[in-house]
This record gives sequence, C-alpha cells and structure tokens, in this order.
Amino acid sequence: MTPAQNAQLALLLEVSGTPKPGNVDRERDLPGLRFEHFLAGAVGAGPGLRAAEGGAPVGEAFERAVAGMSQQEGDNTQFGALLLLVPLVKAAAEGDRPLSPGAVTRVVEDTTVADAAGFFRAFDHADVFVGDPPEDAADLDVRRGSDAIPAVKERDIALYDVLALGDEDDDIAAEWTGGFERTFRAADRLAELEGPASARAARVYLELLGREPDTLVATKHGEKVAESVRVRAQQALEGGPEVVEAFAESLVEDGVNPGTTADLIAGGLFVALERGEVSV
Amino acid sequence: MTPAQNAQLALLLEVSGTPKPGNVDRERDLPGLRFEHFLAGAVGAGPGLRAAEGGAPVGEAFERAVAGMSQQEGDNTQFGALLLLVPLVKAAAEGDRPLSPGAVTRVVEDTTVADAAGFFRAFDHADVFVGDPPEDAADLDVRRGSDAIPAVKERDIALYDVLALGDEDDDIAAEWTGGFERTFRAADRLAELEGPASARAARVYLELLGREPDTLVATKHGEKVAESVRVRAQQALEGGPEVVEAFAESLVEDGVNPGTTADLIAGGLFVALERGEVSV
Repeated sequence: MTPAQNAQLALLLEVSGTPKPGNVDRERDLPGLRFEHFLAGAVGAGPGLRAAEGGAPVGEAFERAVAGMSQQEGDNTQFGALLLLVPLVKAAAEGDRPLSPGAVTRVVEDTTVADAAGFFRAFDHADVFVGDPPEDAADLDVRRGSDAIPAVKERDIALYDVLALGDEDDDIAAEWTGGFERTFRAADRLAELEGPASARAARVYLELLGREPDTLVATKHGEKVAESVRVRAQQALEGGPEVVEAFAESLVEDGVNPGTTADLIAGGLFVALERGEVSV
Repeated sequence: MTPAQNAQLALLLEVSGTPKPGNVDRERDLPGLRFEHFLAGAVGAGPGLRAAEGGAPVGEAFERAVAGMSQQEGDNTQFGALLLLVPLVKAAAEGDRPLSPGAVTRVVEDTTVADAAGFFRAFDHADVFVGDPPEDAADLDVRRGSDAIPAVKERDIALYDVLALGDEDDDIAAEWTGGFERTFRAADRLAELEGPASARAARVYLELLGREPDTLVATKHGEKVAESVRVRAQQALEGGPEVVEAFAESLVEDGVNPGTTADLIAGGLFVALERGEVSV
C-alpha cells in the first residue's frame, strides 16, 4: 500500500471500529451522519491524499482532500482527520523510514502563506464546527473561509502559524505544533494491542477519551461537559461492554460527539499501518 | 465522484450491506475473511479502477485492480466484482450517459488476446475458486494463471471468448456475454427501493439470491445445494428478520458463501451510483 492508500484505509478502519461512544461506527449512525457518509468521504479524499503523496504543497492537497471528502450528503465527516493525514502522508512519501514525529514536524514547519490560503479555502467546502478565534485574530476566523485570504496575505502568515493561534483550544492544531504527540502515542498503543485493526482502534479511542477531554466537545458544550465525558470514558474502560454501551447511548442522546478523538485515531492508524505495526 | 471512485464506493457499500446471509458484511466476519479485508481490497483496487477510467485495456486494468486488491491478508475478496466493475468503469468513462448495457457490451466485445493474457495473469495474484474448464479447453484452465498465456496466444482467443467458454457455469461470465442483464436489473431494483444504499443492497442481494442459484455455491457444493439456498433465500425474504438471521447462521455453519450474488450487487450499485439513482 502507498501512503495515500494507507491514509484511506486508516479512515475506513477508524469509522469501522466499534463501539466508539459518541461517534459513527459500523454499528451506529448519528442523525444525518451515517457510516456510509464516512465511506464516501474516504473514497472522495483520495485525489487530495495522492496529491500530498506526490509532493503537492500541504494547503493545496488538504483543500483537494476536503473538497473530495465533501461529495456526500453527511457534509463534514473527516475534516480534522485529513488535517492530520495530509502532512503525515507527505512526510511518509518524502521521508526516511520509519515515519517519525520529526519528519512530519518538518513538513508542517515548512508550510507557507500559500498553504494557509489553501487551508482557508477548504472551509468553503464543508461545514466545520469551530470556536471563536483569538481576539486579536478575528480577521483570521476560519469560518470566513476564502474570504479571510486577503487577511492571511496581509499578515503574511504561514499555515503552521495559523494553527499555532488555536493550539490551546483545538487538539488537531496542538498536534501540528506539538510533534504529533498524541497521534504517535495512539500508534504505539495500537501496535501493542492484539486483534483486528478496527477493534484495536475502538479500544484506543476509549483510552484517549479517558485521558484528555475532547476539544470538539469542549468547544461545543463547554469544558465541564468535556471533563465529564473524560471521566465517564475512564469508567467505561474499567467497566466492560455494558457500561460502554450505556455511555454510548447517553452521548448520542445528549448530542455529544467526541470527533477530535476519532480524528486522532485515524492519524494513529495511519502511522501504525505505515510502520507495519498494524496490518489488515 | 468519478467512475473509479463510484466503483470503490460500490465495493464498500456492498460489503457494508447487512444482513447478507453467507457473505461478510459489516456485522459478520467469516473465518479468515473479515470486513476489514474488504475495506483494504477496495482501497487497493483503486489504481486498477483508475487505469480503466483512464482508458487502459480491460485486461491490464483488471490485472492491476486484482493485484492491488490482494494486498491484504484475506486473499480473494472482490475478484468477481472487479471483473464486472472494470468494463463498467471503462464504459462509464468513455460512453454516453446514462450508462447502458449496450455501452458495456461494446467494451467487453472489443477485448483482445492481450486482454485475455491480463485476465490469466490476474489469477497469479489471488486464490480464486473456480470449476474445471470445458474438456476441449483444459489448456485454458484459469487456475494455471499466467502459465496458460502461451495457449491463449496459440489459440488467438480474446478475453470475451475466454469468458464465453464458461458462461453457463459462471454468473460473472454470463454477465459479460449477456449484456450485464442481472447487473442492470439489480441497479433498477436498487433505484426503486428507499433508504440508505447499503440497506437497499442487502435487500436486493436476498432478492437475487432467491431468484437464481448462486454459481459459486453450485461450483463448490453442487447444484442441489445452490437450489436449496435459492429456495431458502426466497423463504427468508417472505419471513422477516428472524428467518433471515437463522438462514445466515446456517449458511456460515455449512461454509456456504454465495459470493457471486454479492459481486452482482457491487456491479448493480456502481450502475445505480453512476446513474444518480442511488446516492450517499
């Protein structure tokens, strides 16, 4: 498998892992967001992932991946996962083996103002839930999509620095500026476990969720809810299948979707597949 | 979505349709053959499907698709489905809309001796269960893989004519020589139903299975077993979820896998996606 193929497979294995409380998996759809949308999202992201593999700039490849992903009726399925996968694919295609935090950090640190423009353009294609920007960066609100590009150019700000503005409130941005620490930690943990890849993914998802509050949940529902989800994930880990199931049902009832944690699992699966530590 | 992307999505939707008695689906693995293997098979088939879309000869594109599909530990997951999809993708990429039986028939009728060689080479990549060849064509036994190519060249036989040798005993070959009749009938039926694409796929699978005996089952277990499976599929259709479930369990217990019918569903899903009659 090529890096782009491993990235597609990582997206498919991630959504197939079950039970993954609060997220779509092969046994659970959410209202308006179904397993099938994720399948189509993974297929549609292909050209963008192959562009990253072929050496295209991160911003261009990411916009293309998101545009392709969005050709399904569920809207945003894998935006965050692609923001991890695009630089990881580029690093895997360029770099020495095994794929390392250093290699992907070099890729993200090398991003440019043009990459930042591609990133903002990507928001034109999908409806992504994000919080407010820092007060001194209202002109860089990602919700403005390509309308923010003149401000990007005026500030002469590279994509890495755009993400650094939000790395305290967004776990994907924190991966970019923090050496993809949780992504690689997830990969290590996936490698340690046994059994089918998607079953390992479901387990590590719950472990990650029990360790740190999900930033998508914090942005949507506040930090208290995110912390309570973390504590309950920890209890579910210790409690067994019935507790996990009850936890899953209550998250769906409350409309709580720890999507960022699922994105980190997709990134971790990619690294583990690339390193040959998980295989299908 | 491009034709190659619709083909990948068709493969993914097919295996996601549940319950699909006797076949792998998103809720049921078989011994040694898991849902994940089909995900990886669909990803791996990508370059071959894109080659077909880009105008490569059928035999070359098919061999490439099968080689890519086989990069997973379940071995043969979608050989038969790809034998339908490759000419369908080529027809969709070349032809007038909507995709028609006439267009794909022109593609298969135009196949050459070189395409036949590619077809035989594809058998080197995967362990495909097939019956004995006709007595007067022992040198064209597909189980010989590329070793049969000298015989192919000596007989100067095109791929269409190779498949015509087996069209009485193999439903995929019968599609090639019979205007892809069941593929298009499945597409029409998928278009008529309502609900998520994979749920429609599971329903039409059972309908096809109840109408004609599966040729993979007939080859492996004899015609009596295939006919009994047909009758029981018909009963399951009339009986509701519990009868379907019991039918599924007994097929798995007996090691009976109506794989050809699943392949026809993948073809039907592709046609319905291309025509915009099913969407995700």
